[in-house]
Amino acid sequence: MTQSLHGAPLVIIDLQMAIDHPDWGPRNNPDAERSIAKLLTVWREKGWPVIHVKHNSSHSNSPYRPGQSGNDFKPEVAPIAGENIIAKTTHSAFIDPALGTALAKLKTKTLIIAGVKTNNSIETTVRHGENLGYDIHLLADGCFTHDQVDWNGKSWSAEDVHAHALSNLDGEYCRVTTIDALLSEISA
Amino acid sequence: MTQSLHGAPLVIIDLQMAIDHPDWGPRNNPDAERSIAKLLTVWREKGWPVIHVKHNSSHSNSPYRPGQSGNDFKPEVAPIAGENIIAKTTHSAFIDPALGTALAKLKTKTLIIAGVKTNNSIETTVRHGENLGYDIHLLADGCFTHDQVDWNGKSWSAEDVHAHALSNLDGEYCRVTTIDALLSEISA
Repeated sequence: MTQSLHGAPLVIIDLQMAIDHPDWGPRNNPDAERSIAKLLTVWREKGWPVIHVKHNSSHSNSPYRPGQSGNDFKPEVAPIAGENIIAKTTHSAFIDPALGTALAKLKTKTLIIAGVKTNNSIETTVRHGENLGYDIHLLADGCFTHDQVDWNGKSWSAEDVHAHALSNLDGEYCRVTTIDALLSEISA
Repeated sequence: MTQSLHGAPLVIIDLQMAIDHPDWGPRNNPDAERSIAKLLTVWREKGWPVIHVKHNSSHSNSPYRPGQSGNDFKPEVAPIAGENIIAKTTHSAFIDPALGTALAKLKTKTLIIAGVKTNNSIETTVRHGENLGYDIHLLADGCFTHDQVDWNGKSWSAEDVHAHALSNLDGEYCRVTTIDALLSEISA
């Protein structure tokens, strides 16, 4: 890594009620929210920055559209007073300059990412962020996705979709690690 | 589609000799270069714009690094006089403003994309481009990739990696189509 992870911002992406909509189908990493909550507790105890990225879909049929309960943060990982909330309407959290501005204020190019979905907004944000020069640490067990049918009509389990996305990213666009490995690192 | 594909720019990404390096492993779509060449002939006969995106890697061990034969365009799809060549050093062709500027000069937000690799620079460019507001038509048989081992250690064939990437993109970030379907559309 190019910079210590002590004090690096924890960026949680799109973890809103909408991700539980049954239309998504079966998911992997059922403990992701609880694991992120454990990490959040540590970050809050240390007073390190937490940034919540909130997806405000402009699609009329999206459960992420504002004005519905799907737009609300999942309670396990909801922001507390003083934490930064950044809204986005695209997949990449870096299209709108707000996230870049927040990171610049924190004087860091290093960030830790968790959230959903591994192969959609997470993958797009990590790809874009690395191309912009950010040093990203992605939490494999702090992300999840859903079953998917590929372009040839072949069905893949959520865990396969997730593991494939992580292999696109690891070493090429970010470092993929786990929540426990990160906790060991910062306590070392 | 939001705009006619008649006269839309054909953007060919990273189709350089480096992609034949044996370290990549087995690939899919062995006819991709010949199929793109067929499309190029039509585009050139019609006088429609062609943009060649050239990857100039800054990594010392990359076959795409300038100063090696790997940096050269593949002969089947090499630029001819008058065609635009845009250099890039990152995965997304939209990080440097040159591609956006070229498209603005052509007064279009619509583009057709082919090239390599499906799940690396192609996928990053399509994700980024859509998030910037471009209307992208991606040619399934005008792209290819290589075998890959995922984060769980499971091996995927190049065709599975390719089909999985296309299913991430189709309908969410672009329209995935084929070269023959595109040729039928423009002659209709």
